[in-house]
Amino acid sequence: MKQVPFIEIDGGKVTLCQTVSICRYLAKSVHPDRWLGGATKTDSAKVDMMADGFADLFQLAAHAKYAPDGIKEAMQKNYKDTISVKLEIMQDLLKKSKGDYFVGKSIHWCDVYILGVLQALDEFDDEVFDKFPELQAYYLKMRNLPELKDYIDANWPETKYKA
Amino acid sequence: MKQVPFIEIDGGKVTLCQTVSICRYLAKSVHPDRWLGGATKTDSAKVDMMADGFADLFQLAAHAKYAPDGIKEAMQKNYKDTISVKLEIMQDLLKKSKGDYFVGKSIHWCDVYILGVLQALDEFDDEVFDKFPELQAYYLKMRNLPELKDYIDANWPETKYKA
Repeated sequence: MKQVPFIEIDGGKVTLCQTVSICRYLAKSVHPDRWLGGATKTDSAKVDMMADGFADLFQLAAHAKYAPDGIKEAMQKNYKDTISVKLEIMQDLLKKSKGDYFVGKSIHWCDVYILGVLQALDEFDDEVFDKFPELQAYYLKMRNLPELKDYIDANWPETKYKA
Repeated sequence: MKQVPFIEIDGGKVTLCQTVSICRYLAKSVHPDRWLGGATKTDSAKVDMMADGFADLFQLAAHAKYAPDGIKEAMQKNYKDTISVKLEIMQDLLKKSKGDYFVGKSIHWCDVYILGVLQALDEFDDEVFDKFPELQAYYLKMRNLPELKDYIDANWPETKYKA
């Protein structure tokens, strides 16, 4: 699809593009016995929905950050007008989830993707999570997962948000 | 997620948003014995990638069509600068597919979603498929599927493209 990011799979025979599609594929591959994709058809659909919803938020910030000069101001206004409304909705979904993660009690692949989007928002916008304590807590918990913490500490910018 | 479109599933207990996620869920539900989602993990990832790729094209046209006045001109220029490049890539992927559809020899749920995007592009842009004969042929074949044709003839605007 002549896009980044991409991965080559099946020994280089297939090039897979689209971040969300790549994440779903990797989730199936890394833990084939514990898919991380939702135990039921409904949970699986919720996982997809959450990933696609946060992909929209990523787009919102990316369009504001990388817009050409003629429309940059308008795109940044659009970001500012919209982001808090959207994050409020996301925080509500997190609170309504019957567990600590976006789809119930265990981590799904959408949570790992969402962590990446939250980091991008955090880096782009100094105040982004100021009014969202539950999202902050979720973001910090994900950054501090034992499986991820060392990598994140070594490679990601620091966050101003603290537990 | 306070968005349209949405569907209520599980007897109204769950509200599912995000068009692509809804399509994937419906594909699993309507033909549980013949999922339409790809027979292998790789095909399934390709189906996801194609749907997400065409979702980007839909966004490109929607942003141009519904942008507020201050940035409408710039968004329409962005559409015009980009759409043919993207459709060329999509047509190449179709030609490289080892069958008549985007992922091999049989219809997957991405094809039904793609049909919807192609119709939206066709309605938005009078010339959109003029330079893309293979995409045109695919679009007409999908519109004329026996399972869809009667509904489309009764409910969709006509297309200028003819077999």
